[in-house]
Amino acid sequence: MKQNSIRTSLIQMEVTAGKPAVNTASMLKAIENARTDGIELLVFPEMSVPGYLIGDEWEHESFLRECEECCDELRSASNGLVIVFGSVGLDWQKRNEDGRVRKYNALFAAENGKFLSPVNSPYNFVIKTLLPNYREFDDSRHFFDLRKLALEMDTPVQSLISPVRTSRLTLGCALCEDAWDIDYSLSPMNVLADKDVDLFVNISCSPFTVNKNMKRNRVFSEKARKLKVPLVYANSVGIQNNGKTVFTFDGSSCIYDTHGNQIVCSPPFEEEILTYDIPLSGEPFGDPIQYREDNISEIYRAIDFGTRRFMKLCGINRVTVGVSGGIDSAVAAAIYRHILHPKDLLLVNMPGKFNSQTTKNLARELAANLNCFYTEVPIDDSVKLTVGQINGRTISNTANGIHQGLGLSQFMLENVQARDRSSRILAAISAAFGGVFTCNANKSELTVGYSTLYGDLSGYLANLADLWKTEIYQLATYLNETIFHSRVIPKGSFDITPSAELSNAQNVDKGLGDPIIYPYHDLLFKSWVESWNRTTPEEILAWYMEGKLEERLGYRGKISVLFKDAQAFIADLERWWNQYQGMGLVKRIQAPPVLAVKKRAFGFDHREAHMCAHYTRKYAKMKKELLG
Amino acid sequence: MKQNSIRTSLIQMEVTAGKPAVNTASMLKAIENARTDGIELLVFPEMSVPGYLIGDEWEHESFLRECEECCDELRSASNGLVIVFGSVGLDWQKRNEDGRVRKYNALFAAENGKFLSPVNSPYNFVIKTLLPNYREFDDSRHFFDLRKLALEMDTPVQSLISPVRTSRLTLGCALCEDAWDIDYSLSPMNVLADKDVDLFVNISCSPFTVNKNMKRNRVFSEKARKLKVPLVYANSVGIQNNGKTVFTFDGSSCIYDTHGNQIVCSPPFEEEILTYDIPLSGEPFGDPIQYREDNISEIYRAIDFGTRRFMKLCGINRVTVGVSGGIDSAVAAAIYRHILHPKDLLLVNMPGKFNSQTTKNLARELAANLNCFYTEVPIDDSVKLTVGQINGRTISNTANGIHQGLGLSQFMLENVQARDRSSRILAAISAAFGGVFTCNANKSELTVGYSTLYGDLSGYLANLADLWKTEIYQLATYLNETIFHSRVIPKGSFDITPSAELSNAQNVDKGLGDPIIYPYHDLLFKSWVESWNRTTPEEILAWYMEGKLEERLGYRGKISVLFKDAQAFIADLERWWNQYQGMGLVKRIQAPPVLAVKKRAFGFDHREAHMCAHYTRKYAKMKKELLG
Repeated sequence: MKQNSIRTSLIQMEVTAGKPAVNTASMLKAIENARTDGIELLVFPEMSVPGYLIGDEWEHESFLRECEECCDELRSASNGLVIVFGSVGLDWQKRNEDGRVRKYNALFAAENGKFLSPVNSPYNFVIKTLLPNYREFDDSRHFFDLRKLALEMDTPVQSLISPVRTSRLTLGCALCEDAWDIDYSLSPMNVLADKDVDLFVNISCSPFTVNKNMKRNRVFSEKARKLKVPLVYANSVGIQNNGKTVFTFDGSSCIYDTHGNQIVCSPPFEEEILTYDIPLSGEPFGDPIQYREDNISEIYRAIDFGTRRFMKLCGINRVTVGVSGGIDSAVAAAIYRHILHPKDLLLVNMPGKFNSQTTKNLARELAANLNCFYTEVPIDDSVKLTVGQINGRTISNTANGIHQGLGLSQFMLENVQARDRSSRILAAISAAFGGVFTCNANKSELTVGYSTLYGDLSGYLANLADLWKTEIYQLATYLNETIFHSRVIPKGSFDITPSAELSNAQNVDKGLGDPIIYPYHDLLFKSWVESWNRTTPEEILAWYMEGKLEERLGYRGKISVLFKDAQAFIADLERWWNQYQGMGLVKRIQAPPVLAVKKRAFGFDHREAHMCAHYTRKYAKMKKELLG
Repeated sequence: MKQNSIRTSLIQMEVTAGKPAVNTASMLKAIENARTDGIELLVFPEMSVPGYLIGDEWEHESFLRECEECCDELRSASNGLVIVFGSVGLDWQKRNEDGRVRKYNALFAAENGKFLSPVNSPYNFVIKTLLPNYREFDDSRHFFDLRKLALEMDTPVQSLISPVRTSRLTLGCALCEDAWDIDYSLSPMNVLADKDVDLFVNISCSPFTVNKNMKRNRVFSEKARKLKVPLVYANSVGIQNNGKTVFTFDGSSCIYDTHGNQIVCSPPFEEEILTYDIPLSGEPFGDPIQYREDNISEIYRAIDFGTRRFMKLCGINRVTVGVSGGIDSAVAAAIYRHILHPKDLLLVNMPGKFNSQTTKNLARELAANLNCFYTEVPIDDSVKLTVGQINGRTISNTANGIHQGLGLSQFMLENVQARDRSSRILAAISAAFGGVFTCNANKSELTVGYSTLYGDLSGYLANLADLWKTEIYQLATYLNETIFHSRVIPKGSFDITPSAELSNAQNVDKGLGDPIIYPYHDLLFKSWVESWNRTTPEEILAWYMEGKLEERLGYRGKISVLFKDAQAFIADLERWWNQYQGMGLVKRIQAPPVLAVKKRAFGFDHREAHMCAHYTRKYAKMKKELLG
């Protein structure tokens, strides 16, 4: 067995973005241990030295030199085994197309203190061929790809895609996207397979999104099966961010045999060393793993992990949550309670004159269930003071004696209350408690700006803002049933009408609340934001006219029950579309960072320009037809 | 003359991003007028139909179909003349590498109702060859480039770069970056010149940054001169944004003769039709223009234009500026006063117990000079109420009876005051006045987070946030001298120590103020943010040790006067570097949109990941050496 197999370890390590020395130290330790354990091939993830989503840190030459030094130290440590790792590959003699030093997203292989250059390569590292430039990825901003290099060298790109020969075997090395080739005119792994490789090594730095592992499994499994080469996949764990959007990395590193079966797999969101004797006979090996998990449990784990790591990044140990009695803040509080000791969590209820006894009781009940600090800070005196200072005030132009009186409308008063809670109370009390306060916004309100800037849209992190309101309820149930095994989130918080309670028109005891009809609007908004073929009012109205809107959105009710006629339907559609592309975006620009758990989180995964709502001429025509 | 020249109009139009029907309507009108005027060649800017910086709007297929229809309408209108314009080129049969429909950044030429396909091209449009992926540009995110197409077609890219033949001449068509080829291994314009073109047409959508026109002039002039082909450059005017960053487009369209001389030029930031009979003899023509303007005047014009257009985009007619008596808010107020009628501008001074009579007087004086509305809203009562509610409060855990007292530190009290001004007063009073309030942050404080989130860092737009504090003073002088011809910004605002006046330690009358030593720190921060070789503490410390820091930064004083020893120097360096990459970034993530006027405005032109400050090992070694 030993002669015909290779003892391989995949190092599912936690990569700290932007800290090469930290990552290298942990890699050197792993190499030392692997040598002791008789490992022959040790595989680290993509960009394991520098981290991956590091913004324009790639422009700092001192940082690049440090990465280069780290690569050299790793090479020096490769006596007696083959190590494979990811870092930035540099060519100080050449330029990228932005005029800066030439950088490649590179895979380094080393053995016995020497880098193993790919066959025919001008470099002693493997260059990523396919650079993703969608969603949160900006690879072409920083890295030169192998296709451009081929053009520059006036040689076919296929000749530059070549295996790496170790003393015992031939490795087909690929970086992440190189395997996800379906939309590219070139398949690096197919080219490698034609060059007789014994084993595929795919190193990745692939952010978690719900259901992505299922898709990756299909793609990678097919590669191994069709090309008849076993494949190892090493991904990192941790969080990395683009400022506005925080991504988690779940690892889930694994090994596929030549039948495309996933044989062993590391647990998600944990550091692990996955060791396996991989047979090189070309025969399938081991038993396939069946992996299936429901979405909410995957999502919860990512939120829990991402929140913990983001707190660590920011040096946060104590958290304040403003709790209204509603479901969003209850879910936020429960999530933090699972992370923090009770002494480090403070729930604050900030009642005003429109808050019902119902919700005040629910907030207090939540705090008692969670067994953490609780206090009530009313806003009425302050709101009265603000109204007194502004409502009825006369402003004057001293140069010409012109005066004008100012008045606060009902709508303005709602915002005054929301800002008082967050910018006045929560910001100060969370500082006094020794920490930060949270933003409990969900994706439904974030999409259409149903929130107050410097009010409920403030906070250090919006860790629920990639979930629709309907998913917040699912998460609440999951927290009670699976995490706390107890109804810590009170039944009343599930049952009350979702409401901001900022005016008499939002009286929960009368069942009055948000203007968003979540079961329908969540699906509508999802089709705008998350669906692959992102819809606009043109598609929505066309489906409405065809009577297919329920089916297209997956809505189980009847549209005709929600809107009495086409005019009402269109008014609603335009109201929210205007908000989505107008004030919603204005608010998102100043919103806290969003923790991404699904596709198209707001921020860097869904890039937006402020242009006001667009309606196509075709939409206008259909609307005219419909309304006559 | 007529036979040997071509009557050409460059349409320096205002492009509305994301509104193809609006742009097309104005283009159709221009075509109609041109036909009447006997124009033979009419050139519109790059992406004149859809706009350019439109975020992920490119994913909406209904939007793409509308663009396609608009292109067709323009084609239909081309009877009797040649029109050239920019839009998205679509191939519904193919996919981009993200799996979405194939899109090209394209130039369309049409004559007599027909598109003029480039020689050898599979498409009836010219494809941009070089796609910029640096600074604010994301071209590869959305568009397939000609080099990838050549690879897909298995043909040399040079064969696909080909001229467009009209009934009278051969055009060498290029899109923006195609001319800026210095860092690319391929020069599209050189390839075109080899194919015998009569005239180069470069259509651009090139954002303004100070001094960029000088560089463009060098690059384009050299192309025309070396390749001996006259060149027309059509750029758009307007604003476009990426959410976090607002860019202005100055146009400055012009014509170069075969000696590389700029012969005629449209004024910046204005719509204009630039008409010229361009000789096709290959001889030089006309007299060269000498263009030189000082930076502050260019910057002011961009801020004035950008602010007006952003207000229009947001539908804002009335503005409130919080004025402290200091220079930043005075400059902001003066800029808005030049834009708005006095009845639409409100200045608000919000004194607290630490504000001096000096600055209160300066604020009132400013309002009188600007002849606009003014009012004073004190913060003391509210601050007292907040302190009363939080300082000394006991929070309790009802489940276990544990209590804890809360206290507000001096630093927390400073932030309470700043938030009270913006989130409580300005947000409410600006709404009551019927508009928005401004963010008066400068780039110095934005870089190191010397501001309060939900306090002075809030507002609808930060139109000064791409200027260092030292540049704010220059702009203040420019406003007084050149725009108002009067000292509207009081002398006292120039003379006082810059100070936040949030504690006794910031007493302006005692000359106590900001911890930032602007003449030095502005240059230090600039070297981190704006300089081409962006520095880090490693370079700064090396220069310090070599005694070359003053020279490298361009600082006219002596570092040894500012810092008594190496320890003090390093403490200062690390303080601000930690802030820049730490809390400064945390605050920028939630900051208002920044109006970009220079290179590397924060936001999309300078992308950042939150990773906490990085110091290289080399820096740590030098520091140890120095401090022993």
